[in-house]
Amino acid sequence: MRLYHCGGSRGLRALWTIEEIGLECELRELRFPPRRLVPGYLDLNPVGTVPTLVDGAVVMTESSAIAQYLATRYAPDTLAVQPDEPDYGPYLDFLHHADATLTFPQTVYLRYAVLEPHLGLQRAGELYADWFAKRQAKVARRLETRRFLCADRFTVADIAVAYAILLARKIGLVDRVAPPLNAWFDSLAERPAYARAIARDEAGVPLAPGTPVP
Amino acid sequence: MRLYHCGGSRGLRALWTIEEIGLECELRELRFPPRRLVPGYLDLNPVGTVPTLVDGAVVMTESSAIAQYLATRYAPDTLAVQPDEPDYGPYLDFLHHADATLTFPQTVYLRYAVLEPHLGLQRAGELYADWFAKRQAKVARRLETRRFLCADRFTVADIAVAYAILLARKIGLVDRVAPPLNAWFDSLAERPAYARAIARDEAGVPLAPGTPVP
Repeated sequence: MRLYHCGGSRGLRALWTIEEIGLECELRELRFPPRRLVPGYLDLNPVGTVPTLVDGAVVMTESSAIAQYLATRYAPDTLAVQPDEPDYGPYLDFLHHADATLTFPQTVYLRYAVLEPHLGLQRAGELYADWFAKRQAKVARRLETRRFLCADRFTVADIAVAYAILLARKIGLVDRVAPPLNAWFDSLAERPAYARAIARDEAGVPLAPGTPVP
Repeated sequence: MRLYHCGGSRGLRALWTIEEIGLECELRELRFPPRRLVPGYLDLNPVGTVPTLVDGAVVMTESSAIAQYLATRYAPDTLAVQPDEPDYGPYLDFLHHADATLTFPQTVYLRYAVLEPHLGLQRAGELYADWFAKRQAKVARRLETRRFLCADRFTVADIAVAYAILLARKIGLVDRVAPPLNAWFDSLAERPAYARAIARDEAGVPLAPGTPVP
């Protein structure tokens, strides 16, 4: 199993899941953006994003989907929620919510307000920071009565959503995170597997530009 | 089973799935944005988006997750891909790709370039229309050798991704859709269940503003 990753990226969802399960997986750290800096990467992942997971013949590129895949294949009774459990619907819902509703507005903020200020479109980014702040209401409601999002146990739904909080901290939006979500994230971050994933993430040495995809 | 929906919205992913399976489901058509116009809607869905599916005690708000849930619960051997099938990983991947990668850039375009031009941020929308055009590469590669995205049969992965093409046609981005994706969409749109879903979508009469959530 190989995971192509850039430090701090959504690949952390996959890496954290890998560490929770204890899977053997080679980490291939790439410079950003890999589509331009790593020859051959587009053959593996035509959109050129990170992460990319290769597990035998399976190639995947969506971080929340990778977390669900690994959990279902390798830890179905713990990290996944099964279709016959009452929380199966909410489990799928939060896996999607994590990226489609909570991470996407942050990427718009990151682009226009942080990475590309020369475009003069900072306001377009700031409005999505507001959007991110408001869209936490579903998770906040859920956590009013729960320690974990689904099934009274830690699952990849927690990993997927927690990454959105970690990203907010990384890009200067920590003040836009609702206090219950910050407290919930801090409790999850005490898990040894999280610490191992962060350690691997931070220790990664990206390939030199121009190195073909390994 | 009840589906809260706005005409033309991502709720079509749920409605199409419902029609493919032949499920009984009441359609509650709402005016946009329901969070402001339908008293009590935020109690059901704290973020105030559409769709919202209610199936007994299960309440869900992410359209691709709803499609996966309905398929797994009610049509597991046809519309879903099972964990022991070789295409299980790609199936999850395309379900997430549909919203997190292909629909989100269109919503930024829709906001800044179409719905809120008074903000003077049209360029911020146009750049995400470019992004949408480029991010179709993964689906285009997949369709080079396939009629359906996964498992050699029609699944909810097709429904989830196809909605992104339908949305592009609705909001003036049809010229940014790659020809193979347009042709693939047209072949799927010949399905009787798609026609029934579109007919129900178009026949919906939204509740008058101020009507409490039914």
